[in-house]
Amino acid sequence: MSESGALIGVGVGPGDPDLITLKGLAALKRAPVLAYPAPEEGESLARSIVAPHLEGLVKTEIPIRMPIVAARFPAREVYERAAGEIGAHLEAGRDVACICEGDPFFYGSFTFLFQRMAGRFPVRVIPGVSSLTACAASAGAPLAVRNDVLAVVPATLDEDALRARLKDVEAAAIIKVGRHLAKVRRVLDSLGLARHARYVEHATMRSERVLALSETDGAGAPYFSMVLVHRRGSAWQ
Amino acid sequence: MSESGALIGVGVGPGDPDLITLKGLAALKRAPVLAYPAPEEGESLARSIVAPHLEGLVKTEIPIRMPIVAARFPAREVYERAAGEIGAHLEAGRDVACICEGDPFFYGSFTFLFQRMAGRFPVRVIPGVSSLTACAASAGAPLAVRNDVLAVVPATLDEDALRARLKDVEAAAIIKVGRHLAKVRRVLDSLGLARHARYVEHATMRSERVLALSETDGAGAPYFSMVLVHRRGSAWQ
Repeated sequence: MSESGALIGVGVGPGDPDLITLKGLAALKRAPVLAYPAPEEGESLARSIVAPHLEGLVKTEIPIRMPIVAARFPAREVYERAAGEIGAHLEAGRDVACICEGDPFFYGSFTFLFQRMAGRFPVRVIPGVSSLTACAASAGAPLAVRNDVLAVVPATLDEDALRARLKDVEAAAIIKVGRHLAKVRRVLDSLGLARHARYVEHATMRSERVLALSETDGAGAPYFSMVLVHRRGSAWQ
Repeated sequence: MSESGALIGVGVGPGDPDLITLKGLAALKRAPVLAYPAPEEGESLARSIVAPHLEGLVKTEIPIRMPIVAARFPAREVYERAAGEIGAHLEAGRDVACICEGDPFFYGSFTFLFQRMAGRFPVRVIPGVSSLTACAASAGAPLAVRNDVLAVVPATLDEDALRARLKDVEAAAIIKVGRHLAKVRRVLDSLGLARHARYVEHATMRSERVLALSETDGAGAPYFSMVLVHRRGSAWQ
């Protein structure tokens, strides 16, 4: 019996194609099959990040297309189908690299593939630069130092939960801001944390924007945006 | 007047030399001056991570040597002196790359240099793969998904503070474990979180070890070690 292939989750970093690691790039170039999350129609962000590195290489590609209205066509079915397709390649002895924005294990959809494949096939992960540290670099300020507790908090939580999770920490990264921007501003205002908060969207991409939270218009933000805050104003005071 | 050089904080990743980014490596190769944290005597970990990439290149090197007994010779003086030396190169128009383990803005000592140089000179940061995501990859389990709150908590906090900071989160990374391992075990035990906790030391290095927390001998751990825990046992349940 031939050996099965390996599923390799490759973190490609936050957006700048040169923020992929040497190890991640080598794995991408070597794997005959690439899988990646994609919208229902159109281009995959993860795929577009590595596009400059794949010119001239021929790969079998498996876009994992997620419908915008998830209820209409459950995400579970999308992943079951992708797991079947990827599994067939692995059984045939072909490695499959699954490209993930940022890091595969940091709020990544790779988890939903991982839970279906681990145990059945060899699975490994090559970590990547996460949006967390990329946003801090773009904002030009340290995230946390010394004994700081740093909380990563999804903006999708309801207002009371957000306030409870943010009230005691020294530093916080509020992720998945999107349409929750106005709520995030209210919560940080009520905690006295709004003054020093920085808003970062599309960190390290050409479309990157960095603003004081107070400069945002409150109307909304893209999914790939983050609010960074430090109770001391900065991490070194 | 000639233009001043730039200070570039380069995250070199957690330990595997191939986990540096293309961008970080290019910056290292280009800069005529390298600075890096180092122990009072002997080799710098950050410098050793990039050593395979620097063979044959001639650089001016500035080790920032931190005494083990900080009280004897304050850290402040060490950074003031390094800032002076680095500043002289920048004034002369030479770029200085400061090599940092992991990511410069994620609990990195680069902050202490940054606070002295930002505003006076051009400073930028190239983010790196942090120990946070590297440890998750080594442990083979997702850190956090969906609406999880993820707390990064230094083990240096006292026992009650540790307990308070960990009691409500879905996922936690307890960093700087070192001699605090027994305390961390007690706190996680008391919160019912110990069963699924994983201990990772020297992630992605040759000396990497991954254990269930219950398998650690409790005697202590190196500084570069982390305990990862998820309330649900795993991030996808």
